[in-house]
Amino acid sequence: GAYAYERDPEAITAQSFAIIRTEADLSRFGAAAPVAERIVHAAGDTGILGDIIVSGPVIEATQRALAAGRPVIVDTEMTRFAISARFVPPEQVRCHINDPETPAEAKAAGTTRSAIAIRRAAADLDGAVVVIGNAPTALFELLELIRQGARPAAVYGFPVGFVGAAESKAALAAMATFPFATVKGRRGGSAMAGAAVNAAANATVQLEGA
Amino acid sequence: GAYAYERDPEAITAQSFAIIRTEADLSRFGAAAPVAERIVHAAGDTGILGDIIVSGPVIEATQRALAAGRPVIVDTEMTRFAISARFVPPEQVRCHINDPETPAEAKAAGTTRSAIAIRRAAADLDGAVVVIGNAPTALFELLELIRQGARPAAVYGFPVGFVGAAESKAALAAMATFPFATVKGRRGGSAMAGAAVNAAANATVQLEGA
Repeated sequence: GAYAYERDPEAITAQSFAIIRTEADLSRFGAAAPVAERIVHAAGDTGILGDIIVSGPVIEATQRALAAGRPVIVDTEMTRFAISARFVPPEQVRCHINDPETPAEAKAAGTTRSAIAIRRAAADLDGAVVVIGNAPTALFELLELIRQGARPAAVYGFPVGFVGAAESKAALAAMATFPFATVKGRRGGSAMAGAAVNAAANATVQLEGA
Repeated sequence: GAYAYERDPEAITAQSFAIIRTEADLSRFGAAAPVAERIVHAAGDTGILGDIIVSGPVIEATQRALAAGRPVIVDTEMTRFAISARFVPPEQVRCHINDPETPAEAKAAGTTRSAIAIRRAAADLDGAVVVIGNAPTALFELLELIRQGARPAAVYGFPVGFVGAAESKAALAAMATFPFATVKGRRGGSAMAGAAVNAAANATVQLEGA
């Protein structure tokens, strides 16, 4: 071919993380470094490192929830497809955005379909992993449900955009009564959200009592 | 609820684009401004504007291809789900990454499944819209096929990452014998790719002869 480039998937991955470790100091993340590293990888930008927050034992909480068969609840189909079947059994990932009732409920409530996708999962939130990859309204809805008593095992909050994204993630960080991962500010998205979940599910960790 | 935030989807969209137009000067993009604007929206970052290239009549080429029933060929399922059914008929979007033959072909060729997903679409490329949202190897594969004679109508090149992404997009820009959109450097991803396609498919444009 006319182009010389790395084709081998394992070599690409290894070189990518070698570059990230050269350019980025992940030491402040401690045991959560794999989560931060995968977010940087998905963003294609080490400059995002300063905006990443990983709070509490996200990796352990995620792995325990998965091992217990609890669901991974996501806001959109893009977020679902950002989570790798290599790390999370696809049958544990649930998305209600395309439920037949969702559009009418969103219209009636004057909110987004993504927010209704989370509301429709309200009965499943306890002990679940919740992953918001797109919509600030979905993260705000989740925080409301938590204030009303829901107890997710871990929250991945990665809304993106210009209206409400930064605010919803600041509200997540201010609540902080459970393990969570997020990126401050306007940036985010399903690729970073899925990358964080994949990293947590795949990390080598000794679970106490396991 | 405990949080005050904008819930109405149309208001969120309108406010988002108002903020982008306040913060970003889109004038250099001319008629392609809607494409650039949607990429900025998906990135959650007006700072990406300087890296965006929209070359040639991307909007017209995309709309003509869609109207002619030509396929939209994507590298991954995430890219597929970043393209909105409101703007592009889902039955026109094709992804070969989960073809049963793809993993074995990728292993035999020593390349990624995403690259094979494009290679498997080789016979459909003429007049098609091609959207690469994740893998540099898929974009390089497409450029090889174009050198061998394939003639896509338009190319959306948005690989992300630390190995090959910047190089594959530079090679796309250097070829430049067809309309294309891209983001220079390491950043990119399926959300930006899908946003660009959605903007082009939805833009108001007078097609000559239409």
